[in-house]
Amino acid sequence: MAEIIVAPHAGFCFGVRRAIALAEKVSAEKGGKRIWSMGPLIHNPQEVQRLRGLGIEVMASEEDAKEGDTVIIRSHGIPPQKERELLQKGLRLVDATCPYVKAVHQAVEKLVQEGYFVVLVGERDHPEVIGTLGYLQEAGGTGVVVEKKEDLEKLKNLERVGVVAQTTQSEQFFKEVVGELALWVKELKVINTICNATSERQEDVYELAGKVDVMIIVGGKNSGNTRRLYQISSSLNPRSYHVETAEELKPEWFVGVQRVGITAGASTPDWIIEQVKSKIQELLS
Amino acid sequence: MAEIIVAPHAGFCFGVRRAIALAEKVSAEKGGKRIWSMGPLIHNPQEVQRLRGLGIEVMASEEDAKEGDTVIIRSHGIPPQKERELLQKGLRLVDATCPYVKAVHQAVEKLVQEGYFVVLVGERDHPEVIGTLGYLQEAGGTGVVVEKKEDLEKLKNLERVGVVAQTTQSEQFFKEVVGELALWVKELKVINTICNATSERQEDVYELAGKVDVMIIVGGKNSGNTRRLYQISSSLNPRSYHVETAEELKPEWFVGVQRVGITAGASTPDWIIEQVKSKIQELLS
Repeated sequence: MAEIIVAPHAGFCFGVRRAIALAEKVSAEKGGKRIWSMGPLIHNPQEVQRLRGLGIEVMASEEDAKEGDTVIIRSHGIPPQKERELLQKGLRLVDATCPYVKAVHQAVEKLVQEGYFVVLVGERDHPEVIGTLGYLQEAGGTGVVVEKKEDLEKLKNLERVGVVAQTTQSEQFFKEVVGELALWVKELKVINTICNATSERQEDVYELAGKVDVMIIVGGKNSGNTRRLYQISSSLNPRSYHVETAEELKPEWFVGVQRVGITAGASTPDWIIEQVKSKIQELLS
Repeated sequence: MAEIIVAPHAGFCFGVRRAIALAEKVSAEKGGKRIWSMGPLIHNPQEVQRLRGLGIEVMASEEDAKEGDTVIIRSHGIPPQKERELLQKGLRLVDATCPYVKAVHQAVEKLVQEGYFVVLVGERDHPEVIGTLGYLQEAGGTGVVVEKKEDLEKLKNLERVGVVAQTTQSEQFFKEVVGELALWVKELKVINTICNATSERQEDVYELAGKVDVMIIVGGKNSGNTRRLYQISSSLNPRSYHVETAEELKPEWFVGVQRVGITAGASTPDWIIEQVKSKIQELLS
């Protein structure tokens, strides 16, 4: 009897999955009435298209939404000042901010209360970082974004520094920043707010690829994180294949095969993973 | 007019210098009566010999000291439990614990009060570390000494960790430990207790060696930190010389010389530096 094993962290991270579930719930409640999302809920055109079918439109400008409209705040979150502004316009907000991102906001508030100057390790122009900086300002704190090592040079004369990270920061860079700061700051407090979805997804492949006959990686051919999963898998199992959709699966890959592993990049929706899984089931039987 | 520049951080660090000054003061007050030091006040035989001349003997065993005797606690410090024990024996204590070491004790107490598990980056068998662990125990806290990277493996399931360092720790290792911990601990607080005497002494050489005609480094030929100063100096100025005492200075080194720089390793007493300086003055005139 052949077996198909889907990696536990395949596809969407928790926050994106939750945001889409919330959007679907709101769509059902509104009976298909138009709902806005502030920016695309996910970077996958097929999925955005599917959501549009449910009445969820991507807001091009804030002028788009009229009083009484429903607006979904996506997983990245927004600054609290912006949130108030939208509420004052009479919009109804559905907050799909990822709980891990909310944890960064709370960590920043805590550090400000305890009197720390805040260092946010992340990308200055990323919507998540812009949202978090809003919470820093709201709490009455001061701080900076550290995007590259050189940004640290300005911080040499600080006494008490609190550090948090954008949830998708590289662990390696975070480690380097914290290490450097620890040497020249009198008191350093670090709250590690990196979400480990990316590393978990990779660890799944390390765990799974060697134990199956064939390994299928599902995701955009232009998706960096999917390609990385494919590279790891290939290094452990030469019978690794990268596909975007079920149509690309070839029957000859599964001849005489007992165990198939499946994983998927962070922007691959469940329904595409499900289609791949069903097709493999067919090919195996 | 020739000029001699002594590097600002040449020789003893602040704590050792202070301990010896305290010992001399006690010796003067006691009028040459026997005084014990718990361990040699400095790792320099000539200096220990000089102190013996002032009545300061190195204690071989605690049985040596009798009620009413004076005991000098050297710059490394001792556990508070040991301090009480000595006081109960009726000994008079002179505390020459380095203020930077006292700062480690206080940092540990603070971290324990705030509920952190304490990581002390240092050498398990070093007297300073043994002293600090005494303060950790006294404060009712728990913690471990991290001496090498592998020691970190046991710490993977901790939530709140506070980090301090032995005052003479390598900055590089401290940086690595803090970086690693930042990734797997929920909340990390770091109080950098490394004393920068070693790096300051090296920075002096970087600053000075290129600006003088001849650079003299004073210290034991077997002293690691002195040899490192000589290496740095040689890389910047080929006319760098390493001597243990004034007798080793050669007149030909100073022919036609206008500016001479002097620095010294951490275990070189001032009086040896002074003798070297005087001899150079003679050779230059």
